[in-house]
Amino acid sequence: MSPTITAFERSPDRGRGLARDMRVRWALEEVGQAYDVRLLPWSDMKEAAHRALHPFGQIPTYEDGDLVLFESGAIVLHIAEHHAGLLPDDPDARARAITWMFAALSTVEPPIVDLQILVLFERDQPWYEQRRPMVEDRLRDCLGQLSRHLGDAEWLDGAFSAGDLMMVHVLRRLTPLGLLAEYANLAAYVARGEARPAFKRAFDAQLAVFIAAEGS
Amino acid sequence: MSPTITAFERSPDRGRGLARDMRVRWALEEVGQAYDVRLLPWSDMKEAAHRALHPFGQIPTYEDGDLVLFESGAIVLHIAEHHAGLLPDDPDARARAITWMFAALSTVEPPIVDLQILVLFERDQPWYEQRRPMVEDRLRDCLGQLSRHLGDAEWLDGAFSAGDLMMVHVLRRLTPLGLLAEYANLAAYVARGEARPAFKRAFDAQLAVFIAAEGS
Repeated sequence: MSPTITAFERSPDRGRGLARDMRVRWALEEVGQAYDVRLLPWSDMKEAAHRALHPFGQIPTYEDGDLVLFESGAIVLHIAEHHAGLLPDDPDARARAITWMFAALSTVEPPIVDLQILVLFERDQPWYEQRRPMVEDRLRDCLGQLSRHLGDAEWLDGAFSAGDLMMVHVLRRLTPLGLLAEYANLAAYVARGEARPAFKRAFDAQLAVFIAAEGS
Repeated sequence: MSPTITAFERSPDRGRGLARDMRVRWALEEVGQAYDVRLLPWSDMKEAAHRALHPFGQIPTYEDGDLVLFESGAIVLHIAEHHAGLLPDDPDARARAITWMFAALSTVEPPIVDLQILVLFERDQPWYEQRRPMVEDRLRDCLGQLSRHLGDAEWLDGAFSAGDLMMVHVLRRLTPLGLLAEYANLAAYVARGEARPAFKRAFDAQLAVFIAAEGS
């Protein structure tokens, strides 16, 4: 039995692979685990049937037999724990890779989302022009520290891990916002992630969903 | 050898136990693991010595022999994986408890921090009064969904777990902001967490640090 994940029937990112199902697809491709996808129309996101799987009415979810998970971080960690390829064997290196997963989700993603919220929902507000530099400065502070830590390393801590997978995908959310180009080593890091065959397979799969939805 | 964690020498929360070292202290108390604390003055947070442990120059860190971790989520998960008491034995229940850790950190904490940032750093801005309801509405949307999921259950998924520990502490950040009282079951849930002997020991330990700093 393959696990089933959920994704947007019509993703607001228009097939750019920025939605959180992409992380789970990528992880499944890295470990070579086939999966099924159940597509959700917007109108079903907050309905009781989906809330029974995801209390916050979001995607992705992950169903494997009786197990139901939500939160992309938890799902990717679950996949990484049950297959070889996304976490180092050495216990200390494994704990550090998991640390980078949390860093991506708890430290780096929130200021990125704040800028997205500003651009998406506050662009017409009178404070938009004045507030944008404040939000960008907080984000640059975070990205600058990440850039300094990465230096000229290929990945965050030794070999590619679930920590890199999560960080690369979180940083990809910056692409429509334009800040990534200010950090050449982070841009190259994201490009290395995107060049992985498993990333490409996952990207193509989510793009196919968007193209099919546009044609319908 | 006991692990060593870092905490603020003088916490900006004035001993209310809202800083992220509290989560790690609480987890260590729950599993009965003694620990040492290295206190950091503000001036050292962004210095090279501390950045070598924590690339983002924050607290807490966790050192145990050669292992160095940062991110409260990763540290609590590491503690929970290496001691009994914070994760269920059943593999599916264990994965769900970890899901709630990620939900606390990735879904619930960011809108709480957004409101904190607004109150702390944008109070004097001309848009403060107009923007506050927008930020609060996003937070209420999240809290309402969490409240609906919890219902009249004692903990989020069966017995108390690292997921509850993280969620209770994240929700405690709301106490100075006043919104928690709108959700009676969430307020009672937080109170149940605070009533645990391990919570009280951790709380007293961080309070003692603040009292000592005030007297110095």
